[in-house]
Amino acid sequence: MSGFVSFIGSGPGDPELLTLKAVDRMQRAEAVLFDDLSSGPILEHASKTADLVGVGKRAGRPSPKQDHVSRLLVDYAMTGQRVVRLKSGDGGMFGRLEEELVALREAGIEYEIIPGIPSAVAAASAAGIPLTRRLTARRVQFVTGHDVSGELPPDLNLPALADSQASTVVFMGKRTFPLLAAKLAEHGLSPDTPALLAEAVSTPDQKLTRLTIGTLAEKLAGERSRTPALVLYGPLAEMGAGYDD
Amino acid sequence: MSGFVSFIGSGPGDPELLTLKAVDRMQRAEAVLFDDLSSGPILEHASKTADLVGVGKRAGRPSPKQDHVSRLLVDYAMTGQRVVRLKSGDGGMFGRLEEELVALREAGIEYEIIPGIPSAVAAASAAGIPLTRRLTARRVQFVTGHDVSGELPPDLNLPALADSQASTVVFMGKRTFPLLAAKLAEHGLSPDTPALLAEAVSTPDQKLTRLTIGTLAEKLAGERSRTPALVLYGPLAEMGAGYDD
Repeated sequence: MSGFVSFIGSGPGDPELLTLKAVDRMQRAEAVLFDDLSSGPILEHASKTADLVGVGKRAGRPSPKQDHVSRLLVDYAMTGQRVVRLKSGDGGMFGRLEEELVALREAGIEYEIIPGIPSAVAAASAAGIPLTRRLTARRVQFVTGHDVSGELPPDLNLPALADSQASTVVFMGKRTFPLLAAKLAEHGLSPDTPALLAEAVSTPDQKLTRLTIGTLAEKLAGERSRTPALVLYGPLAEMGAGYDD
Repeated sequence: MSGFVSFIGSGPGDPELLTLKAVDRMQRAEAVLFDDLSSGPILEHASKTADLVGVGKRAGRPSPKQDHVSRLLVDYAMTGQRVVRLKSGDGGMFGRLEEELVALREAGIEYEIIPGIPSAVAAASAAGIPLTRRLTARRVQFVTGHDVSGELPPDLNLPALADSQASTVVFMGKRTFPLLAAKLAEHGLSPDTPALLAEAVSTPDQKLTRLTIGTLAEKLAGERSRTPALVLYGPLAEMGAGYDD
């Protein structure tokens, strides 16, 4: 008797940005394993009788090892329960989904994957900035700003990231952005390129700050805040309201 | 007396992949302007008394000019109505959102933007393929496969697109893929690179076909089908079920 796991992308944080399908699975779940960023009001969609299990993984903080999370997921499913595995944003985008899928397949447990609103997409909507522009941004790219050790990944494709004709979103890259900005400049991208710092997107603490790559790098050089954040840069449209700075 | 426009990303087609916020706005709308790909069962969330206005734009078919759609949107909002503008996937990703935002701002009409599940994200979920992989795909990129004239855009960043360490999703690129595949090979990307053709994602007609860049280019060279499709390629994970070929 093995259970069933629904991987759910919970979106960026606003519980109203869950999909109808995600809410249905939450309501029917007997156990919900969640990350820090998919907690709070999102969990109110779960049944009162469901086990709510935090497996907090958050950039920059000590967190359970991925192996341990995968094993816990298998253990819950093996009891025959309907399990929901909540992942912030979309699980398939920088969510370490693959490791957990592999563990379930090896254990012979069935699963489904329900997509969620990627935090990058929610950030762009909140800022009023379309990620693609008809003539100036026909390519969008998403990249992680840190590797397992917390540093800027050594094997970034810098020419691709320094393309002035693409919109780029850096996940988990607030701390390493000053270094990335220097490398982008070396590869020819102007420090005057528009940039957006999007913190705590779609939550009551949301903060959007419009700068340039150069001024954002200066701002972040001395900063120690752990607020989850995305950095967008490229030929970003000028429209949009609701900025804090 | 001017109305209010809610831009809504309707997701890839499955009405259960709408967000709670999108459903709320649909239910309260007095007019809903929709594209072909955000029609069908999605419209059942609208009030029985709402005006449903098709402004069908679909790759490869004659469709209203963007100017005309923008003007129609302004005209509806100017009557003071609550207007929903539905766009398939996420409006900010290859959805021509910017042109409509500009038209509303020029007319002094307020709006909000509600993000949707991008079709690329839904395709990856359906195929069981995470778009990022911890060591082999730290970058994901989305690109359009056709420009205004329907041809492969002349200014693609081919070295970025030929990166074997990134997952790439080509929107509206079924017809031009054989040409793109040839250019990728010229830039050093192996024709044996895994590829996925994802057609009519999340609808009853969904079809997922796993190939390589080379075999997909051959398959598409003779094809004339107009089914909306995405092409994914890169170091795609092997997992996933439900393929048709």
